Amino acid sequence: MGIRAAVAGASGYAGGEILRVLAGHPEFEIGTVTAGSNAGRRLGELQPHLRSLADRTLAPTTPEALTGHDVVFFALPHGESGAYAGLLGDETLLVDCGADFRLADPAAWASFYGSEHAGTWPYGLPELPGQRDLLRRTDRIAVPGCYPTSVALAMFPALAAGVAEPDVVVVAASGTSGAGKAPKPHLLGSEVMGSVSAYGVGGVHRHTPEMEQSLSAVAGEPVTVSFTPTLAPMSRGILATCTAKARPGLTAPRLREAYAAAYDGEPFVELLPEGTWPATAMTLGANSALVQVALDERAGRIVAVAAIDNLTKGTAGGAVQSANLALGLPETLGLTTIGVAP
Amino acid sequence: MGIRAAVAGASGYAGGEILRVLAGHPEFEIGTVTAGSNAGRRLGELQPHLRSLADRTLAPTTPEALTGHDVVFFALPHGESGAYAGLLGDETLLVDCGADFRLADPAAWASFYGSEHAGTWPYGLPELPGQRDLLRRTDRIAVPGCYPTSVALAMFPALAAGVAEPDVVVVAASGTSGAGKAPKPHLLGSEVMGSVSAYGVGGVHRHTPEMEQSLSAVAGEPVTVSFTPTLAPMSRGILATCTAKARPGLTAPRLREAYAAAYDGEPFVELLPEGTWPATAMTLGANSALVQVALDERAGRIVAVAAIDNLTKGTAGGAVQSANLALGLPETLGLTTIGVAP
Amino acid sequence: MGIRAAVAGASGYAGGEILRVLAGHPEFEIGTVTAGSNAGRRLGELQPHLRSLADRTLAPTTPEALTGHDVVFFALPHGESGAYAGLLGDETLLVDCGADFRLADPAAWASFYGSEHAGTWPYGLPELPGQRDLLRRTDRIAVPGCYPTSVALAMFPALAAGVAEPDVVVVAASGTSGAGKAPKPHLLGSEVMGSVSAYGVGGVHRHTPEMEQSLSAVAGEPVTVSFTPTLAPMSRGILATCTAKARPGLTAPRLREAYAAAYDGEPFVELLPEGTWPATAMTLGANSALVQVALDERAGRIVAVAAIDNLTKGTAGGAVQSANLALGLPETLGLTTIGVAP
Amino acid sequence: MGIRAAVAGASGYAGGEILRVLAGHPEFEIGTVTAGSNAGRRLGELQPHLRSLADRTLAPTTPEALTGHDVVFFALPHGESGAYAGLLGDETLLVDCGADFRLADPAAWASFYGSEHAGTWPYGLPELPGQRDLLRRTDRIAVPGCYPTSVALAMFPALAAGVAEPDVVVVAASGTSGAGKAPKPHLLGSEVMGSVSAYGVGGVHRHTPEMEQSLSAVAGEPVTVSFTPTLAPMSRGILATCTAKARPGLTAPRLREAYAAAYDGEPFVELLPEGTWPATAMTLGANSALVQVALDERAGRIVAVAAIDNLTKGTAGGAVQSANLALGLPETLGLTTIGVAP
Repeated sequence: MGIRAAVAGASGYAGGEILRVLAGHPEFEIGTVTAGSNAGRRLGELQPHLRSLADRTLAPTTPEALTGHDVVFFALPHGESGAYAGLLGDETLLVDCGADFRLADPAAWASFYGSEHAGTWPYGLPELPGQRDLLRRTDRIAVPGCYPTSVALAMFPALAAGVAEPDVVVVAASGTSGAGKAPKPHLLGSEVMGSVSAYGVGGVHRHTPEMEQSLSAVAGEPVTVSFTPTLAPMSRGILATCTAKARPGLTAPRLREAYAAAYDGEPFVELLPEGTWPATAMTLGANSALVQVALDERAGRIVAVAAIDNLTKGTAGGAVQSANLALGLPETLGLTTIGVAP
Repeated sequence: MGIRAAVAGASGYAGGEILRVLAGHPEFEIGTVTAGSNAGRRLGELQPHLRSLADRTLAPTTPEALTGHDVVFFALPHGESGAYAGLLGDETLLVDCGADFRLADPAAWASFYGSEHAGTWPYGLPELPGQRDLLRRTDRIAVPGCYPTSVALAMFPALAAGVAEPDVVVVAASGTSGAGKAPKPHLLGSEVMGSVSAYGVGGVHRHTPEMEQSLSAVAGEPVTVSFTPTLAPMSRGILATCTAKARPGLTAPRLREAYAAAYDGEPFVELLPEGTWPATAMTLGANSALVQVALDERAGRIVAVAAIDNLTKGTAGGAVQSANLALGLPETLGLTTIGVAP
Repeated sequence: MGIRAAVAGASGYAGGEILRVLAGHPEFEIGTVTAGSNAGRRLGELQPHLRSLADRTLAPTTPEALTGHDVVFFALPHGESGAYAGLLGDETLLVDCGADFRLADPAAWASFYGSEHAGTWPYGLPELPGQRDLLRRTDRIAVPGCYPTSVALAMFPALAAGVAEPDVVVVAASGTSGAGKAPKPHLLGSEVMGSVSAYGVGGVHRHTPEMEQSLSAVAGEPVTVSFTPTLAPMSRGILATCTAKARPGLTAPRLREAYAAAYDGEPFVELLPEGTWPATAMTLGANSALVQVALDERAGRIVAVAAIDNLTKGTAGGAVQSANLALGLPETLGLTTIGVAP
Repeated sequence: MGIRAAVAGASGYAGGEILRVLAGHPEFEIGTVTAGSNAGRRLGELQPHLRSLADRTLAPTTPEALTGHDVVFFALPHGESGAYAGLLGDETLLVDCGADFRLADPAAWASFYGSEHAGTWPYGLPELPGQRDLLRRTDRIAVPGCYPTSVALAMFPALAAGVAEPDVVVVAASGTSGAGKAPKPHLLGSEVMGSVSAYGVGGVHRHTPEMEQSLSAVAGEPVTVSFTPTLAPMSRGILATCTAKARPGLTAPRLREAYAAAYDGEPFVELLPEGTWPATAMTLGANSALVQVALDERAGRIVAVAAIDNLTKGTAGGAVQSANLALGLPETLGLTTIGVAP
């Protein structure tokens, strides 16, 4: 008898990826799968790549449908999972891939999301200092956003080691699956192929306060993030380029040492050999993050780059990694570090 | 103790995919990995997506390096695996992903490959009538070519059922990984992105006699194939569109019945629900083939379409599926039908 | 004073391309631009690549808005341009990029389009035998469909020369712009990138009777076409692979001669040097068609391939080429044969 | 009789684009085209998109071959054009698309290029303050690098207006054509499709001192640039995201005013309407730069973004724009602002 898992919001890209990861996991058994407007349809129509689950029918997303599972993964639009948190008992592990329970500061939530703050759950990024232990003792997990995952992994070692000024500039390129499955003109293949574009410029992207929250925690002082997202012509992947002024006296070996120490023994984050730089394709479908860092001595800046698959380490894989911890399973169970390339 | 597998030619795309599949297989243990001009290098430099194997060193491809394994997978340039066949003993399962042992007819080999014919091994396409049993009793496997895999799966049910004329037209689109990793100007990203092109037109592609061989065997009469390959702007995937005149009196239900019967119970081939057509992305990284068929009553033709991942079901996944059979393992062990999408 | 041209349906991909071509034409002056649901919006919002026209406002598509121009280009959904034909006087050249006036046979129209047949206008493909003269004397032009343009150019020389059997198999790959700008889930970038898919299989695509009509006319006997369209991960381009049985005794030189003769002196169609095959990217944004042909002696088949830009030679460029003829201008005026590559 | 132009290095991507632009220019007549190892070949083999020039033969690149032209465009590897500068007389306009004559500081040249400094020519970016007049009086033009073009256009208005701190962070995504046509494994389509990767990180990219030079000149004080280039899965296009601390008291309207003033009347640079952000596809094949800017008040930073086609405004179009000025022609002659989209 496996651990019974429900997926709420199984018709979207995040929900589909959760199912893909769960289907390859030796301990999970997939229970109810739900949807909003797609309720009643065969999963095979909506997620035709999930061949072994094609005959499942999507139930409407309701507390009743989700009851009776050991774990519920939420892949709902932001603001919707809060409603279920109180209705499902403490004996159920709730894993929210939405933003609802990520931010500790109600004012930041209000300013960026505009609705009522649902609360704060342990943040599902085990690589952050102290976080793994917290996740081992929780029944509620707020899965980080895809961009914040990549930025935290690129920059936290420098900030934790106190070698970077707390003023970070991030420019990240994301594949289009991060924008979801609802058809909008600017997301048409005809528009995105052959094109890189900027959006949400000027500090307005909702992931900004989440980046500041996790980096400030490790830095022990307030960290400001200037974040510019861009859309790249690929389905999956995030490449986050992050830079901050180096603290005086920092040397390249000392910088590298900080990263090597941070990621020594981490199963899913790899500090690449010197001189090689991350490419998102290397992480396709894998729970890996590839990280590299350099000291630009001319400009006095640290430049750190991370590549992840936004749907795997950036969403579903990260969710299962944290759920493994919360359930007392080996952290790496059912998760691969091997990407599908080329 | 696992089954010890060597991979000869581990620095190319086929070799990399064999390693990716083996790394996710519960019974295989990866032994020696070899290369030609890349011998001596770290695997991580050449296959950076294979994180868990990054520290392996590539040995030179020699009989000595390949000795002492239970299975040897060959992913060498055409014409090179023949030399090893006699040197490795019968106690070793040899699985050749090259063309050397695919063709039964030495004249066809000479005409399309121009070198001496190495011999003929059992053809590693278990879905073909009678083939599964043969593969259960062999210690030599000739893995089909990627295009021939897709064409055989698209067309054999019609020919086996005697409902199609033995004169097949195939136009197939392949991702660029099928052309290998050797850098050539026309394979540069700048050239292939945003472009579909034809090549090997006029019946000159080497996979043509292989298609005719397997289709003729199931048809019980000589089948002619007119094959045109095209290159599409994607890394992986083959979509094969195949058409043949319908035999008089054929009805759409009878045609569908032939396909349904052929694929009933097949773990890796799915006849899609009526009205839906294959897309290669649904098979990315999976050992799946998606098949659909229609009867064009105006033109009197059967049109059958198959989508596969050229590197997985079309090469490495197919190789492991057949190796599972030859080793007495469950046919599906270590292989997924779930693609990485979107 | 230029020739005053209106564009009806200027917010879509075809309309945008007509404007792009007209803006580079020395004799046309762009008058009214109209739209349906986008009427009232700035062109710059909808066609941001047309910088010099950004401040134009879209008028609603009405007979009044289109009156008072020397030429009206229609880029409306199929079935809508018929309504304007009678309302705009004979002194106006009407150029319809929709299907309404392409088919001579009302039964074919009814069977594939399902609405009332609007009539038949001269077919705007000057390369077809006799067609150029017709277009010089018309004030009504039915611009061919994008797929039929590529198929007619690939196959008519063989059929006109009587060297091919009248039973043609066509498999064509198209970029996504051919599917238009209305956002649909299967056209999202996330879905189309990295994927080739089939659709409209089994002789049901609406362009089939149009192909049969033009090929039958040049063959002097009824030609049957089995047509399978596929969607490729690129914005623009069509590669049409066409094959037919060779008539007995056909030799490769005789076949090539037929094509060389057909395209000798044609400004926009190039028979490529022997051994090189068309790639769609070479025609990007150009009014070119690249054609190549081979005789597959093993299979007894002619294989002809054509590459065009579906929006340029396949729609807007072809429309302007024919309009040039009808207006007594040099046929090539304002049109380039040079693609934007790489 | 047109202005006779030679192109040295006509077989590469930059050379091909110069020819494409010249072929559409009403005053230029294309004279000798040269190549290095490709000398003696037909241009049609190497640049198959340039249909009307297909029958030209490439001459070897020598001073003799280039003599006797009114203009010579150099598209040679860095370090090679210097050798010709002294050999071709002052009556010839020399336009160098290489880096040889861009940098004023021999030390910067030595540090980033490692060879002897050839000298300094007027910098071909007419949009920079004072530069247009200089270019009207020169017979030598150093065409800016592709990245420096995008960065100068994104940032100079803020620095010229004194509203930005002189410490600029740039992260730019480039299409693969910027890496040239020499086949290298990491530039294969199989590697670049579906992937964004970083390279040249840590202030080591050769375009860095060029960015600093032009921005320092407009700022009137030394400007430091931290530059990270990334490779995106598209053939053409650069999206440069640039950010600098805002000087105290800067308001959003004041910032926008600085950009509006800088680009008022500029034919090729467009400050986009507020709220819309650049996409590279809008500039495909056009000499346009699309610019947008925002003030991130939370982070106290200016964020400016520019999109160009790296081969057109970033190389060949920019070269012809400056050549037009130097030759006394209208600056916009033969250049379009309309991109090929979608």
